[in-house]
Amino acid sequence: MDTVDKLSRYAEKIGSEVRICGVPKTIDNDLAITDHTPGYGSAAKFVANTVRQLALDTAVYKMKSVIVLEIMGRNAGWLTAAAALGNDEDVLATDIICLPERVFEPEKFLEKVSKNAEKGIAPIIAISEGIKGADGKYIGESLSLKEANDGFAHAALGGVGRIVENLISEKLKIKTRTIELSTLQRCFSQGASECDREEAYQAGVKSVEFAEKGETGFMPCFKRISDEPYKMEIVPYPVSKIANLEKVVPDSMIGEDNMSITDEFIKYGRPLIEGEPELTYEKGILKFVRR
Amino acid sequence: MDTVDKLSRYAEKIGSEVRICGVPKTIDNDLAITDHTPGYGSAAKFVANTVRQLALDTAVYKMKSVIVLEIMGRNAGWLTAAAALGNDEDVLATDIICLPERVFEPEKFLEKVSKNAEKGIAPIIAISEGIKGADGKYIGESLSLKEANDGFAHAALGGVGRIVENLISEKLKIKTRTIELSTLQRCFSQGASECDREEAYQAGVKSVEFAEKGETGFMPCFKRISDEPYKMEIVPYPVSKIANLEKVVPDSMIGEDNMSITDEFIKYGRPLIEGEPELTYEKGILKFVRR
Repeated sequence: MDTVDKLSRYAEKIGSEVRICGVPKTIDNDLAITDHTPGYGSAAKFVANTVRQLALDTAVYKMKSVIVLEIMGRNAGWLTAAAALGNDEDVLATDIICLPERVFEPEKFLEKVSKNAEKGIAPIIAISEGIKGADGKYIGESLSLKEANDGFAHAALGGVGRIVENLISEKLKIKTRTIELSTLQRCFSQGASECDREEAYQAGVKSVEFAEKGETGFMPCFKRISDEPYKMEIVPYPVSKIANLEKVVPDSMIGEDNMSITDEFIKYGRPLIEGEPELTYEKGILKFVRR
Repeated sequence: MDTVDKLSRYAEKIGSEVRICGVPKTIDNDLAITDHTPGYGSAAKFVANTVRQLALDTAVYKMKSVIVLEIMGRNAGWLTAAAALGNDEDVLATDIICLPERVFEPEKFLEKVSKNAEKGIAPIIAISEGIKGADGKYIGESLSLKEANDGFAHAALGGVGRIVENLISEKLKIKTRTIELSTLQRCFSQGASECDREEAYQAGVKSVEFAEKGETGFMPCFKRISDEPYKMEIVPYPVSKIANLEKVVPDSMIGEDNMSITDEFIKYGRPLIEGEPELTYEKGILKFVRR
């Protein structure tokens, strides 16, 4: 977006009629001004349904166990928050959701994990890869927690998920497994969101229309009109006011215990994961259009 | 199946009319006699399409990189072999597939990884969790390879995938990422196989029919009539001849270099992943029938 800004100013300066715009895409959902970004809805849906299915898988065993699910998002917890969308009246899949927006407090965390395991509820613990300790350092790089685990720093192998896994299994003696969703989050199309797919397409269409009308140096922004029924419009917005800003999950969407999600987030996220695109398979294998 | 065997013999001995049968299910596909097992087709399809999508995701970056994909299967490589089903004329996603049926040879392995990376092809390296070294020990537990990595054994964190990742990144200086499919392989229903779903159902239906006719102590076995068009029938088979046996991937399905898959496996696996079941979503979230 910074480059879009510079290029469009240069084009204007030299009197060029070339229009420059930046059509956004990021599963991180961390761009300012726009309500959300193309890509987020599908990744959020992948996370939500993964959490849900893992919880049901876990529920068939009698033995108490938890899964630490490591989710992308270095500084913004939008994708990790989406784990909460996997819950409904049938299934409480997760209610420990740790975002980078809050300091990770091992003792309070272990207390809640222990309580849930006692009750046999919410076996999935959603952890953002970017959670930080009280010292402001990423837990994935925080020596103190690793040392607390077993007296030795395993910096080379395993990320924050493994560290949290060790914390739980050693302090609480609960069977713990880490699953790192890794790049599956951004490329898995089975179970994508039709809302997202259509909006991504419209972001491109609208951008061309705005450019044809003379707009330049803009990003097409999603402006939400209402949650239910979900209504959204696309408006151009000066990219200079968006570039280099990062939008994190606001306080109002994070629970008071600093490791859960409020209904405000659910209202926000729910419409973005609705609908299922039709996919093309050939002999069981997904076919994609390629350049 | 061993319990089914014992129970049915006991029922016969005491003259009971209770019929006992063992309807199989395992994503490992390692049961003897039956052509394949319910569950395998869907898990195989998940692996195939995951490999395919990860390869396309990797292809958008100019930097050479590989993904080590750790797949379930402690002693039988059926599910790992399914990675090859993600290839077609459009996409060569993987052609290094390491099964527990063959000794893992680090030097030959690194040579092939290096060659593929040079050519920029087949970025996904499919590794069974159960691969073993020349000493017959699981690589995941093999101290020698871990020491070769960095002089220290990281037994606590990370499985075989991380060990192979370290091997590649340290010896070849290629950017490497490990993805462990973990329990997603057995519970992810988006992109499941309709062939598998229907056959699993039929295995149950047929078992009841066989039992009604007086059969006992049996497992319903899938008997393949033809590959193309795919035809299969279900027959009862004495469970005493199946219990405690393990079916591994036969030599004819493994390539001469000991780290690839032959066309014979493709012919075997292809029909099992065909068709897509209709799933029920409510507001973007999968709904399941629960007891």
